[in-house]
Amino acid sequence: MVETRIVPAAGGAGVRLRRGDRLRVIDPQGGQSGDLVAYSLDGRERLSNGRTFDYAGKIHLSTGDVLWSDRSSPMLTIVADDVGRHDFLYGACTVEMYHREYGVVGYHPNCADNLDAALRELGVEPGPHQTAFNLFMIADVVEGGRLLIRPPTCRAGDAIVFRAERDRAAAISSCPASGCNGGAPPRPLAFEVLPAEAPAA
Amino acid sequence: MVETRIVPAAGGAGVRLRRGDRLRVIDPQGGQSGDLVAYSLDGRERLSNGRTFDYAGKIHLSTGDVLWSDRSSPMLTIVADDVGRHDFLYGACTVEMYHREYGVVGYHPNCADNLDAALRELGVEPGPHQTAFNLFMIADVVEGGRLLIRPPTCRAGDAIVFRAERDRAAAISSCPASGCNGGAPPRPLAFEVLPAEAPAA
Repeated sequence: MVETRIVPAAGGAGVRLRRGDRLRVIDPQGGQSGDLVAYSLDGRERLSNGRTFDYAGKIHLSTGDVLWSDRSSPMLTIVADDVGRHDFLYGACTVEMYHREYGVVGYHPNCADNLDAALRELGVEPGPHQTAFNLFMIADVVEGGRLLIRPPTCRAGDAIVFRAERDRAAAISSCPASGCNGGAPPRPLAFEVLPAEAPAA
Repeated sequence: MVETRIVPAAGGAGVRLRRGDRLRVIDPQGGQSGDLVAYSLDGRERLSNGRTFDYAGKIHLSTGDVLWSDRSSPMLTIVADDVGRHDFLYGACTVEMYHREYGVVGYHPNCADNLDAALRELGVEPGPHQTAFNLFMIADVVEGGRLLIRPPTCRAGDAIVFRAERDRAAAISSCPASGCNGGAPPRPLAFEVLPAEAPAA
């Protein structure tokens, strides 16, 4: 029996993965974007968009593509993807981003703090974040390199599945930014870990 | 008299900048790409492509654009640019990249090591790199998000000028990767620091 864990709306959760485990991230209600980071268990190696873009030769990543670390280790391979579009350009949202872009005063839930807290619960000191992998978020590069964010196209129950290529710590955040979620308030995400030896869901 | 310093071909150099200083990076021979990183003097804050893409709303950065840190501080503003295209998608080249992409065996000069050594000479411990700002490098995002690297268009003597928005440590590498330099062997870059109070060059 695979346990389904909830990432609370605008909150975060962490999980340790053994090599070969599959991490299935689900959007239970549809239309919700999230942030994903992955670290080596000693915290010294983390996802790198620059390394991944280089080795993939592209910025849009889906089934069959590998997410690489800043030290050229394969971290996660996308082995199934109901959605097909995710973003690896935008940094995780932060308090400062809400101050600047949304005019928020005081604290606002944000992916960076959610990811940091989830990693620390796993015993991993996050240090300076690399740019996160933004689940289900769609940012198009258009004329002149301009970026256009579109609402996620994921429907209720859609999922993306990653295979861990090493033992890793991962953290997931349900993005609180309405701009990434088609203007809707944040909703929960969910995830399951399918052990290496178990058949695919 | 402004001193012109050389970044050796396939090598690196570092420089401390005071708030308001302008860093002018020159391609003396033309067609040469480079990598630039900037850190706070305590090493805890560094350039972030994800934060910069978010705040700029675009991936191509030139005159008037700010390069932001992972903590939402303005790091460098591009105040002049003879070239108009640079890249902020590709991670700095590493030994592992040359092994993987170029079939190199053993050591190969690389931007990551050049940048790290230059930062350490300034007393800054680099830690995990964020994706570097790739001077004069052109990577187009085409159909399906694929990346196409084109030769740099910079001609001999072309330059880009950054204004430091805080006291910062910066490092520059002359990229040894022929793939980023139109197939040519690496050539030197050069730079000058124009103090805050000096007139523009």
